[in-house]
Amino acid sequence: MAREPMAREKVATRLHVEETLVAGQVVGLDHGRAHFLRTVLRLQVGAQVALFNGRDGEWSAELEGLGKGWASLVVGQQRRPQAAEADLWLVFAPIKRGRIDFLIEKATELGCSELHPALTRFTAVDRVNTDRLAANAKEAAEQCERLSVPTVAPPRDLGKMIDAWPEERHLLICAERGEAVPIGEALAEASEAGLGTHPWAVLIGPEGGFAEHELTALTRLPRAHFVGLGPRILRADTAGVAALTCWQAWLGDWHRRPPGRGST
Amino acid sequence: MAREPMAREKVATRLHVEETLVAGQVVGLDHGRAHFLRTVLRLQVGAQVALFNGRDGEWSAELEGLGKGWASLVVGQQRRPQAAEADLWLVFAPIKRGRIDFLIEKATELGCSELHPALTRFTAVDRVNTDRLAANAKEAAEQCERLSVPTVAPPRDLGKMIDAWPEERHLLICAERGEAVPIGEALAEASEAGLGTHPWAVLIGPEGGFAEHELTALTRLPRAHFVGLGPRILRADTAGVAALTCWQAWLGDWHRRPPGRGST
Repeated sequence: MAREPMAREKVATRLHVEETLVAGQVVGLDHGRAHFLRTVLRLQVGAQVALFNGRDGEWSAELEGLGKGWASLVVGQQRRPQAAEADLWLVFAPIKRGRIDFLIEKATELGCSELHPALTRFTAVDRVNTDRLAANAKEAAEQCERLSVPTVAPPRDLGKMIDAWPEERHLLICAERGEAVPIGEALAEASEAGLGTHPWAVLIGPEGGFAEHELTALTRLPRAHFVGLGPRILRADTAGVAALTCWQAWLGDWHRRPPGRGST
Repeated sequence: MAREPMAREKVATRLHVEETLVAGQVVGLDHGRAHFLRTVLRLQVGAQVALFNGRDGEWSAELEGLGKGWASLVVGQQRRPQAAEADLWLVFAPIKRGRIDFLIEKATELGCSELHPALTRFTAVDRVNTDRLAANAKEAAEQCERLSVPTVAPPRDLGKMIDAWPEERHLLICAERGEAVPIGEALAEASEAGLGTHPWAVLIGPEGGFAEHELTALTRLPRAHFVGLGPRILRADTAGVAALTCWQAWLGDWHRRPPGRGST
C-alpha cells in the first residue's frame, strides 16, 4: 500500500500551453488563466506549477510575475518526458449540453486522442459548440495529468465519415440492436491478435439508434466490430465511457500506474 | 445486423411501482407521475405502458383513467419474468451535486444492486440527499429497462463500514496510489475462479484519496482487491463508472443482449 503522508499527494497545478518547453523559456498566460491563478488558486510569485504542450513532456515552471489579467512563468526542469499515446478516436452523435460536456471530460480522462462529433439520421442535437468542447477537453487533460489534449473535430455527417473512413482504423460500434459480440470477447480477441498498437475508434450512436442505411454502411467497413454492452439500455454518454474503459482495460495502457504515486 | 424499422424500436414508457403485479390488478399513480404521463408524455386513456416492481418481472398495463393529479392503470400480460441480478454494491465517498447524480444514474445503468455513500477522512461533501439519489436511481432504472431499482443506503462512516464488512463480500478498491493490480488482471483471475456469482462491491475514494488508517483497515479485509485504472488520474465519478463497467464486462451479464432487440 501507499505509505506517503497526504501532504505529498498534492500535485502541482498543471497548465497546457502552446509554447515550446525548454529550460529558461518564459511563458505568458492569457487573461482568463492569469485570473484563475491569481484569484481562484491564490498563487503568488514564486509558486511552482507544471506545464505541458503535448510535444515536450511535462515541465516544472515558476510563477515569475502575476498581475491583473497577466502572468508570466519561467520554465525549469522537465518532470516527465513526452510518452507515446493511443491513437483512439471517439466518434459520437451530439447529445444535449451537460451530457456532452461530461462525455468529453470522461473521454479525455480515458485517453482519447481525437473527438469526432458525427451527425446521424436520428441525431437529436444538430448544433455543437466545438470551442466549449475543446475547452472542456483541455481542462480535463490538465486535471487527469495527461501529456496531451485531445483534438475536437468539427461535426460531420456520419455517412461522409464512413465513406472517407481510413481503411486501417478499427471501429468498435456499440450496437443496442441486432447481432453483436460482447465487447470483452471482441477486445480479448483483438488483444491476442496484438491490435493494441493499431489505430482504433469507438462509435456511439444517438439515443434513437442508428438508421438502417447507417448500419448497412458500417457493416461494409473492413475493420468494423459490432459489440454489445450488456442487457441494460445504456444512455449514449454511458455507452461511450463504458466502451472507452473496456478498450483501455484490454488494449490500452491500464497495466501502468499514475506517475509519482508509489509503484508504477 | 438488426433489420427492424425504427418504429419498432420505440419501447413503452416504463414505470416502477410498489404494488404486486398480476393480471387485472389496478395500480394508481401519485400526483407527480400522473402529471408526467398527462402533460409531459401527453398519454391518453387506453395508452400502453410497462410496469415493474423489482419482484414480479415486467408487465404491460393500460392507462384506464387519467385526471389532474391522478392516474389509474390496469395490469395486463407479463412481458418479462423477474431475472436474477448481480449482488454488486457501489461504495462511494459523496461528491458534489451533478457529479453524484451522474454517478448514481450510471451505477444504476451498470447494474448495481445497492448504493452506499461512505464518509471518509478526506470526503469533501458531508451532506447527502439520499431521497434525491433514490429518485435518480428509480428514473435511471425505468430508462435502462432494468427490472429492479438499486437501493440507496444512508451515509455511513467508512471505518464503521469496514469494521462491519461482510466477510464473504469481495471488494474492488480503486487505488490511485501504491501497489495495485491492473483491474483487468484482477477480474480475469476472479472470472477464472468463478467468483462472478459471489457478492461484490466497488469502492471509490474521495478526490483527496484515502487516509493512511483507511488504507490500512482496507488491507485487512479478507477479500480486498486493490486495483489500478491506468496512468491517468480519473475523477471519482469516472473511476466508479469505469470499475463497474469492468466488473460487468468480466464478471457480470455483458454476454447478454438487451431484451426484444433482435438476438439475445
